[in-house]
Formats: sequence, structure tokens, C-alpha cells
Amino acid sequence: MTRKPKIKAGILGATGTVGQRFVQMLENHPYFEVTALAASDRSAGRPYVEAVRWKIGEGPPAYARDMLVQECRPGLDCEIVFSGLPSDVAGPTEEEFARAGYKVFSNASSHRMDPDVPLVIPEVNPDHLAMVEQQRRMRKWSGFIVTNPNCSTIHLVLALKPLQDAFGLRKVMVTTLQAVSGAGYPGESAMDLIDNVVPFIAKEEAKIESESRKLLGSLRDGRFVDADIVLSAACNRVATQDGHMECVSVELGRPASLEEVAAALREFRARPQELELPTAPCRPVVLRTEPDRPQPRLDRLAERGMATVVGRLRPCPILHYKFVALGHNTIRGAAGASILNAELMYAEGML
Amino acid sequence: MTRKPKIKAGILGATGTVGQRFVQMLENHPYFEVTALAASDRSAGRPYVEAVRWKIGEGPPAYARDMLVQECRPGLDCEIVFSGLPSDVAGPTEEEFARAGYKVFSNASSHRMDPDVPLVIPEVNPDHLAMVEQQRRMRKWSGFIVTNPNCSTIHLVLALKPLQDAFGLRKVMVTTLQAVSGAGYPGESAMDLIDNVVPFIAKEEAKIESESRKLLGSLRDGRFVDADIVLSAACNRVATQDGHMECVSVELGRPASLEEVAAALREFRARPQELELPTAPCRPVVLRTEPDRPQPRLDRLAERGMATVVGRLRPCPILHYKFVALGHNTIRGAAGASILNAELMYAEGML
Amino acid sequence: MTRKPKIKAGILGATGTVGQRFVQMLENHPYFEVTALAASDRSAGRPYVEAVRWKIGEGPPAYARDMLVQECRPGLDCEIVFSGLPSDVAGPTEEEFARAGYKVFSNASSHRMDPDVPLVIPEVNPDHLAMVEQQRRMRKWSGFIVTNPNCSTIHLVLALKPLQDAFGLRKVMVTTLQAVSGAGYPGESAMDLIDNVVPFIAKEEAKIESESRKLLGSLRDGRFVDADIVLSAACNRVATQDGHMECVSVELGRPASLEEVAAALREFRARPQELELPTAPCRPVVLRTEPDRPQPRLDRLAERGMATVVGRLRPCPILHYKFVALGHNTIRGAAGASILNAELMYAEGML
Amino acid sequence: MTRKPKIKAGILGATGTVGQRFVQMLENHPYFEVTALAASDRSAGRPYVEAVRWKIGEGPPAYARDMLVQECRPGLDCEIVFSGLPSDVAGPTEEEFARAGYKVFSNASSHRMDPDVPLVIPEVNPDHLAMVEQQRRMRKWSGFIVTNPNCSTIHLVLALKPLQDAFGLRKVMVTTLQAVSGAGYPGESAMDLIDNVVPFIAKEEAKIESESRKLLGSLRDGRFVDADIVLSAACNRVATQDGHMECVSVELGRPASLEEVAAALREFRARPQELELPTAPCRPVVLRTEPDRPQPRLDRLAERGMATVVGRLRPCPILHYKFVALGHNTIRGAAGASILNAELMYAEGML
Repeated sequence: MTRKPKIKAGILGATGTVGQRFVQMLENHPYFEVTALAASDRSAGRPYVEAVRWKIGEGPPAYARDMLVQECRPGLDCEIVFSGLPSDVAGPTEEEFARAGYKVFSNASSHRMDPDVPLVIPEVNPDHLAMVEQQRRMRKWSGFIVTNPNCSTIHLVLALKPLQDAFGLRKVMVTTLQAVSGAGYPGESAMDLIDNVVPFIAKEEAKIESESRKLLGSLRDGRFVDADIVLSAACNRVATQDGHMECVSVELGRPASLEEVAAALREFRARPQELELPTAPCRPVVLRTEPDRPQPRLDRLAERGMATVVGRLRPCPILHYKFVALGHNTIRGAAGASILNAELMYAEGML
Repeated sequence: MTRKPKIKAGILGATGTVGQRFVQMLENHPYFEVTALAASDRSAGRPYVEAVRWKIGEGPPAYARDMLVQECRPGLDCEIVFSGLPSDVAGPTEEEFARAGYKVFSNASSHRMDPDVPLVIPEVNPDHLAMVEQQRRMRKWSGFIVTNPNCSTIHLVLALKPLQDAFGLRKVMVTTLQAVSGAGYPGESAMDLIDNVVPFIAKEEAKIESESRKLLGSLRDGRFVDADIVLSAACNRVATQDGHMECVSVELGRPASLEEVAAALREFRARPQELELPTAPCRPVVLRTEPDRPQPRLDRLAERGMATVVGRLRPCPILHYKFVALGHNTIRGAAGASILNAELMYAEGML
Repeated sequence: MTRKPKIKAGILGATGTVGQRFVQMLENHPYFEVTALAASDRSAGRPYVEAVRWKIGEGPPAYARDMLVQECRPGLDCEIVFSGLPSDVAGPTEEEFARAGYKVFSNASSHRMDPDVPLVIPEVNPDHLAMVEQQRRMRKWSGFIVTNPNCSTIHLVLALKPLQDAFGLRKVMVTTLQAVSGAGYPGESAMDLIDNVVPFIAKEEAKIESESRKLLGSLRDGRFVDADIVLSAACNRVATQDGHMECVSVELGRPASLEEVAAALREFRARPQELELPTAPCRPVVLRTEPDRPQPRLDRLAERGMATVVGRLRPCPILHYKFVALGHNTIRGAAGASILNAELMYAEGML
Repeated sequence: MTRKPKIKAGILGATGTVGQRFVQMLENHPYFEVTALAASDRSAGRPYVEAVRWKIGEGPPAYARDMLVQECRPGLDCEIVFSGLPSDVAGPTEEEFARAGYKVFSNASSHRMDPDVPLVIPEVNPDHLAMVEQQRRMRKWSGFIVTNPNCSTIHLVLALKPLQDAFGLRKVMVTTLQAVSGAGYPGESAMDLIDNVVPFIAKEEAKIESESRKLLGSLRDGRFVDADIVLSAACNRVATQDGHMECVSVELGRPASLEEVAAALREFRARPQELELPTAPCRPVVLRTEPDRPQPRLDRLAERGMATVVGRLRPCPILHYKFVALGHNTIRGAAGASILNAELMYAEGML
């Protein structure tokens, strides 16, 4: 097959925690070539290596070190943009880019619940991407905005989707133990996390509950219809660097044996696996059977950080089954999610 | 009122994590005087200060430093014993003491679920203590064994009891985030808790589920009858030193408003408060209304570590209400629980 | 003896990390009565309990909860002020107060090295307080400023003073492992301290080196003369909540046996101990002989957080001796240091 | 060039912390092929994946999973063995293997200071390997033992060697902040490292002081002659998972400017770099110039964990210069050190 030329990509919020992951994961990407890094005005005009406080290893990849950081305004030399902007500025900035013709893949929460914006996990609801046409038409945009969910929602929904497909799904209780990188940098104070847990993350519980219903819902007659599932979330911040852990109980739509449930999780494959997208995990859900797994430090990099690792599957005396789900919050839970959305649209010829 | 003479007390397992709390909390106790410290044969014969690896501050209180550690065998010069023995040796040792006439207040799990052994939280089921007469008669013991629950069970049940009393209680889902001191010393490896969470604590989930039903149940016709409540527990070990946190959802027996539920928790008082027992908290349940409390580091010492702190009370979309409960696991959750049981029996004239 | 009436005291920066310790330590103080709490304009006008994010336990003491926070400007109803202001604002604000007649006991670094401002540890250089008369005269202030050292300097110098007195002191190498509360709140990011050490604390090494020389120096002919000691400091931030640890090597002025050095440390007593000042430790230096002490979690509250705990005293192959020193950084290392200075001046009739 | 066939290698102590790194680092190794895994009798006979508690990621590499663990006794089908045995059993076991003809590359401390056993860092003292001939002759062994230093010694000496070469070296003061993986599994208790530092590691200070002198010394007339350098070490265990940090002060043999010292470190290359050994770092010493580096979490994987990262180079008021050195303790500090020794002997035709 003849190779398509790479698509030029920009990164908005390139100096932030999610932005750094975009820079890292897009190194030598087969579809996309990073041609623009943009961040706050304070960073603009400086070489990336100087503007960034790199927090995920020794330092930025060679390709990005000397690129000059630009302002987050249309005019960037690229066709698509990945947005790791903080929510308070993402909304209008991303709209501005979409209006100017850029295809925006956003990790920000601002537009996730918009009625004409796809909120997509490629393994879960790739069909929702069809909404972009309506979005462009209605908003008179030459570009578009596609979003991915919140970091804790993604891993929950990846674990739920095989169950919904196989058995139906009625109720989901989830208690999270989330890593500090999920709050960005500087994020949480060390004083709050040494010998401590903070049982509160602003807006997180509502995001999990509403985003999950949209993701597991359907696109019917040009409208997103929420899944008819009741969710209840309780969110905690714990002293882990990366990797959100979630204790989940589910009530299925019909009775199923433990082995059926395990098989559904273990054998789950979807469109990104068929298409062998470059960033896609071979197994979107990795099922472990040891009594004490998954653990953040050991399992967050499963499938290069793109899988949801599930373990401790067992009956729940109140709902049907309970289990522990874990996934990397800034790889599959953020930058990798946006990139996989872009890869899917690229592979499906939608870019 | 004339002061009764103090009762002589021994501590079994005095060098362990729970034993150290016994030694600390019984300093200058108005009812009990520590006259014997006993531990493993390895420690026996040595001054306490040399035998112990003191892990809860600078060092043991002056009264205990030079006491010679004895073997855990009857013959100790005391009338009651507090047992902080590990479960694998507690069973037969405690029986031996009870047979020899000692009144045993045990924190070990060995006898908690025995049909003739009271498992008691003084604020919850003080009437269960009546079972000791039957126990002595049936087992032909001159002494007896009274137990207190597991560290995570205690704080859960203290938060549930006011709700059961006021509204009835049908279902309880709980996910715990437990401190490392709950595993004793050395307990968990640092390698497992730095930048990590372990989603498994052996036998803990079963203990929470079964002990809670016994505690919230009744003593009828000389038998313990479990409460008709369904519980589902998921237990995690996190990087906190002290203080178990629990995310709880409950289904009540009848509808109740948030304010009614809050009032039931806030106003809960019971027998230890009436009797003003020396170790009893003024408020067994402390209700906080800030969005991000309780937190282990800040709240575990509420009421000198003897209270359960509840916060984030809010509706649960699946059951009725959810909240976060927190309490000190080696004070109210272990040594303090045994001591409060002994204080109650003392004050009720049962010793 | 007839009791003098209590002196009215204000706290500047009352909502900060050090301010909270002032509020806590001045509860029921025998000499001082807190009559004013002042903080940033953002906090001014609000009840203290609402303005503060209390980080050292359940919540502020009852006396302070409902006091209205005022602005940090003269006009406060008090005679002395304790300043926990951040360095960037402390300088001019403290001068303004001194000019207006307040006696300022400052924990800020702004004026510590001023040639007419005493930098005092009561056990080390109480005679330096005499400088306040000259300060008032020269600056034409009716009040004055007295400062205490940086949190890491205090514990180092408390350990050095007995050695200087007994043997003379020529060289001091020190590597610190400092707790996060030393950076205030929010201070360090949790991302930087989970599974990590930061080998840098801005300006800290220079403070240790220069402040120590002033403290161990003399007041001669109306001028502070630095001690003739060479210091070399290397500072690290580690994942402890409270308690700065310091690995120290010293070259003495004359040979001394290990036992002589141990005795000098162990037997050290000074003016605050003679005067039995309310906040003074019985033993300013606590010497431990176990191989693995002091440790922050176990020893930081020695003598209610007012002592420096020294351990692992042993020969140094390069200088003469090495040891580990540890002390609480927000008690003896900050608020307690200012309070002890005020207590000393009160007891000496200098207030 | 024609490829030599791979040499068969066994791993002793294959289930331990260092053993796991051997298993990981020898996957697809160009010189060596792992043909035997040996561990304690308890593990023997079981597939590796079941015998091991894998602590460095998801699980062991595919090649090792189903290999049956054997006992640590000669008879293993291999020519060389890598030993990650704990010190208490390493001594006699390694001798037994050497006597039986195996070439032993040991990470254990047992034989490091033996007068006829090379203690080698390939960049530092490759010539010491010549001693193996004498060792074989004297001990009448058909095999031999070559050792590498302690994890904290290696990174210290890698940073010192360029200075010794360029300027001479007289005195070295070092204070370490060491990671928990250095103590093996389970090693340190989580109770000792959460919100804490332990200022003591058994025998570590003596190892650093004596091993460094042997490594930086010479092999003259068939004898190892220690370098004439005075070292003073103070060792601490901190709450990091991997990566030992060391605060170092040095007195050089002759005056040198900061830039000269920086250049010596930055430009250091040695025999493994010339030979382009497969595990060798391109830069054995990586010099960073930011004010707050190196940091364990960010820098321990520099050069795939095989480099020593140096930063904060600055004058020392007492000795000449001070700096911070950091390196991975189980990669370059243990398994990688043994492997690099074996690679060097292979490349030099000594195997």
C-alpha cells in the first residue's frame, strides 16, 4: 500500500501534564507529524525545552526541544490540533480553532457534553464520530471538535463496554483511587498527599456519571441518546504518581456466570484492534487473575499504557459482580485517548 | 463516691502494633493498672523498652519501660488481660487464659464469630455482653472472652448504627482505603506502597461483611441473631500510616431526608457517653460538612482517636445515601475498642 | 509571686502554615493572649475558621474560630505581634509595625541578617537581644523587630552550640532532608515528592551558612561578629510531612573523645531551662543511642516539638565527628522559636 | 564480522529483586542466552512465573515465564552465572560454582573485598579483571568469581573516577538518600517509610568507604592496592522506589576550575564506550545544569538506567566541590553492573 503523507499536527497546552504526553507519544508517529507547539502567552516565543517543566522523565524528545512555543491562536501551521488545554480556557479556544478549519481532538471537558460534539472511545462508540458532519453544518465550521472522556471515565467505560455488549448493564457503583498526575502540575499539594487521602475531586463524580452514559449510549436520528444505566461514583485522590484505580460493582442486564463475565472482558476486541491502529492496545482490557492485582505501579503501563487492566473479578452480594479496574491516566486516560480518536478518523478516511 | 481499687491488667502481645497502643492508652488509666506485659518467648525476660520496637513516637511511657516481659501463659499477676495477639496464636492462648480465670478482652479475630463470644462495640450492642454468663457456664470457664471487631468494621458499624436505629438498614456497599499500621509491623513492604495501592487485604472483606451483621444483630433467647442486612466490601491498602477511610453507600429501611440522616449521625450518643467512660468519645460519630473531609492525617485523632468521622454525606443514585467514614485503626479500631469494652463492663459492675 | 497580666498578642500571616502553629501554640499561653489575627486582604473580614485551611489536625482551637481576620496593618489591638508572613511581604510590613510601636517577633527571613536586628535562639545567643535598644534608637522606632532563624538552621545550631561551648568549632558540613511543611501551603507539588526527592531548596543553603555564623557569633561593641566557622550545606526536600533531618559532620576546635562529645550534647542546658520558660524544652538537645534514630515520624515531637534530637554520633574519617540531627520544623523550627524569644524577653523584663 | 555463538547463562537468586532485573535485562541479549534460573529450594521445581513475585512491571518476559526454577547448585546447563543471591548464602554457593568451572558474575557483597577477587566497574578499573588468572591458579578453580560493587558505591565511584583521572582525589564526603528497592523484597516496612526517613542502612557506610578505595586503587605486582583517598559516608533510606541519590563533596588532588571539573564529568568515556558494549551507556556520567536535578523519578532511567546523573555542581566551602549524583540502584547499581562486567570480559576475549 502506498503511504499517505503525514498530517501536520499541533499541540495546544503543550507544556502541561497532558501536553507533555502528547509530545512524547507523537514522536515518530506514523500518521501525524508535530509541526506546532502552543501554550500560554508566558511560554510563547521560547524554545520548548526552556518553556516546559518536563515531568515524565529526563527531558522532551529531540524533535521538540528546539521548537518555538507559539500562542494558542489559529495560524498554527497544521491541519489537526490536539488539545491538552485546561478546562477554563479550552472552551472558546477550541471553538476558535474549529471555526478556523482545524480538526480539534480535545482532552478538555469543556465540550464533551455538547449535543453535537462526539465524546468517543474508539473501542466503545466509534459510530458517534458521524456527528462531526452535523456539527460542522450547524456551527458553520470548516473544522470540528472531537472529544475524549475524563481520565477516570475512560478506564471505567472500557471495562463496562464488554459487559454491556454481552449482558446488558443496569447499575454501576464505582469508588476511585486516583493518581496525582490527573490534577496536572502543580496540582495537589504534597502536604495533602503524604500520609493522607483526599476524598474529593472537584466535578469528577458528575463527569464519570454523565460521560459514561453518553459513551455507552447511542447515536439515533442525529441525536445522542444516553444509555439507560444508573451510575454512582465516589472519587478519592491518593499518593500515586500515575494510574487511576477503580473499585467497581455492576448489575448486568441478565444473569451471567463468573466465567462468562471473565470471557467477555478477556476476549473484548473492537475497531481499533481490527484496524491495528498504531497506538491501539492489542487487548483493550487485560484481565488478571491473581488475588492482588491490578496495582498502579505494576500494571499502569500494560499495553504501553493504553489498556484497562481488570482484576479481582468476583460476585457482589448487592449488585452482580465486582472488580478492580486500573489504567494509566495521562496515556490512555488523556493524550493517548485523543490520539487514538485521531488515528481512527485517519484510518476510516474521515480526516 | 468512693473510688474502687484499680483492677490489675495484663497485656498479651505487648510488643506488637496493637500491644503498643494498649501500653500507651492504659497509662494512668482510672480503672485499670498494668501489672503484666507478655509477648513471644523471644521477648520474654527482657525489659519492655528493649524488647519492643516502639513505632508510635519517641518511646514507651515511663511506667512500662523497665517492666520485664513475660511469656503469654497463665500465671500473670492480673485479673483481666487485653489481647493484641496475632490471630494465628490468639485462639488457643486466649482460651487458656479464660479457662484459668482471666477476663480476656481480645482484639484478635479468632473468637469473634464464636456463637457464645460477645463481639461488642459499646455504642452499638452493649447488651451482647450478657452472653458471657452462658459462655462461662457452657465452657466451664472461671474467666471469659469478650472480643471487639476488626479495625475497618468498627468504624463502618459506628457510622451505620445511628442509621439502623433511626431508619432501618438494608444494604451497605463499602470500599476501604486502609492504613499500613493495620497490618502490624513489619506488615506491608515499602516497595508495595510507594507510588502504589494494593487492592487486596486477606480475609478483610469477609470480616467486614460477617462481623457487621453480628454487631448490628440481636441477642435473642440466648443466641446471637445476625441483622438482616446485605453488605458488600472491597478493601484496599494505601500509603497512609494510620486511619482507615471508607467510602460507603447505604440503602435505608425507610425513606429519610438528607437532613434527617445528618441529624441521626450528628446526634448519636449511647451507653458509653451516658456513663462517661474514661476512653469514650463525647461524640462517637463526628459529622463534618466541608466538601473534602474527613482526611486521615487531619481527622484520625478526632476525640483522641476514638470517634468515627463522617463527611461528604450526599444522595446515592443507586442506594439511598453515600458518605465517607474515617477512624483511627489502632486506637478506636483496636486497642481502644478492647479498653472501652472493659470500661463498660467495669462501669456496669460486670467485672 | 504575683502574676503579671497577660500581654496582648497579634499574629501576622495567621492563616499560613506557620501562622496556624502560632494559633495552636498560643492557646492558653500563660504570658500572652491572642487578641488579633491578621492575614492577606483576601482573608480579612472573615471568621478565622472560614478563612483558614487548617492543615495540622481537625481544626483551629475554639478561642480562634470566630475571631475576625484583620488586615496586616498597624491598628491591631495588641502590644506584640508574631509574624508568620511570607518573606516577600514580611520586610516592609514588619517595619511598619515596629515603627508604630509593636514588638515584632518574626519568623520571616527578611530582617534576619540586618546588622541591628537580633537573630536569636534563646539557648544559643540570648545576649544578642540587647541589640534591640540600639535598633530602636537608630531607627527611631517605638517598637522593635526580633527574628529567629530558618527552620533548618535552628536545629543545626542547637546541636552545634554545646560543641562550640565545650570544644570550639571550626567546620560544619551538613546535608538536609527537609519536610514539605517547611515550604508552606501549597508549597511543593505532590507530583514532585511521590517516589522522588528534590535536591534543591531555593536560598536554603545560603541561609544555613550565614545565619549559623551570626547565631554562633558574638555581640561586641554594639556589633554582631560572625563566628569563625566554615559551613557547607546541601539541602534536599523529601516526602515527610514534618521534621527536618540533617546529616552533620563537624571539626571541633580541639580534640575530644566520643564520650565527651556525647556528654556535651546530653547535658546541654541554657537560659530558657533555668527560667523554665513555658514553651522551653527540658532538654534542648535529646541524645539517642540506638543505631537508627532519630527518625522524623517518631522523634519530631520530642519535648513537644521543641527539642533537637541527635543520634548516630560517631567519628568522621574526614572531620572529627558525624551525627544526625532532627527537629520539628514548624514548632521549634518556626512558631515555637518566635514564641520562645518572646517568652525570654518577657521573663527577662525586656517587654 | 562473524557472530560468535551466544554463551549460556544462568541466574542465581532469580526470583529476588536483583534476579528479576537480570531476567529482564538479559532478554534478547546479543552475547548471552539465559538457559537456567535458580533460586531457593522453596521455589525450585516451579515455573518461574509462579515462583516469582514480579515487582518491576506487569510480569516476567515471555522467555522466562515457563522455565522451571532449579536449585542453586552446580549442574545448571550454562557456562556463566549471574548471582543476585543474598549475602548470607552467596559466599559458599558462589565458591561452589566457581570450583565447578562456572564463571560467576556476582552482585553479592560476600567476596568483593577478597584479595584475589576483582571488584570491577568497567569504566573505572577494567584492568583489575586480570586478577582472575591468579584467583583460578591459587584456588585451583576452573571457573572464577568477578564481583561488582554495592549499589550506592557504583554511582559514587562513576562520578569520582573522571575527577580522579583529571585532578587526583583526596577526600570524599557523601550523604546518601537511598531507594527501598535497594533492600530487596520485602525489605523495609511501609510503616518505616511513609512520612519518614530511616538514617541507617546496616553495613552500607563501611561498604561505600572500603569498596571505593579498592575500585579507585590499582592492581600492582599481583595485588590490589587501595587508593589513598579518605571517604566518609552517611546513609539514609527514603521513600523512593528506585534510584539512589548522593550528596557529595570532594577535595581534589590539585586546584581545578568549575568548568574544568564540569568538562571532566561531561566528557568522561571509557573502555565500555569504546567497545560499544551492548549494555553500556553512551555517557557513563550525564551532567545536568538545571538547579534542581537530578531527581530519582525523572533521571534514574537516563541511558536506560546505566548512567550516573550528576547535577548541582558547585564549590564547597570546606572541600573543593560539591554535587549531587543519582543512579538506578537495581539496573546500573546491581544487575546491569554484573552484566556489563560479563560483556567486557566477553568482548576482551576473556570468557
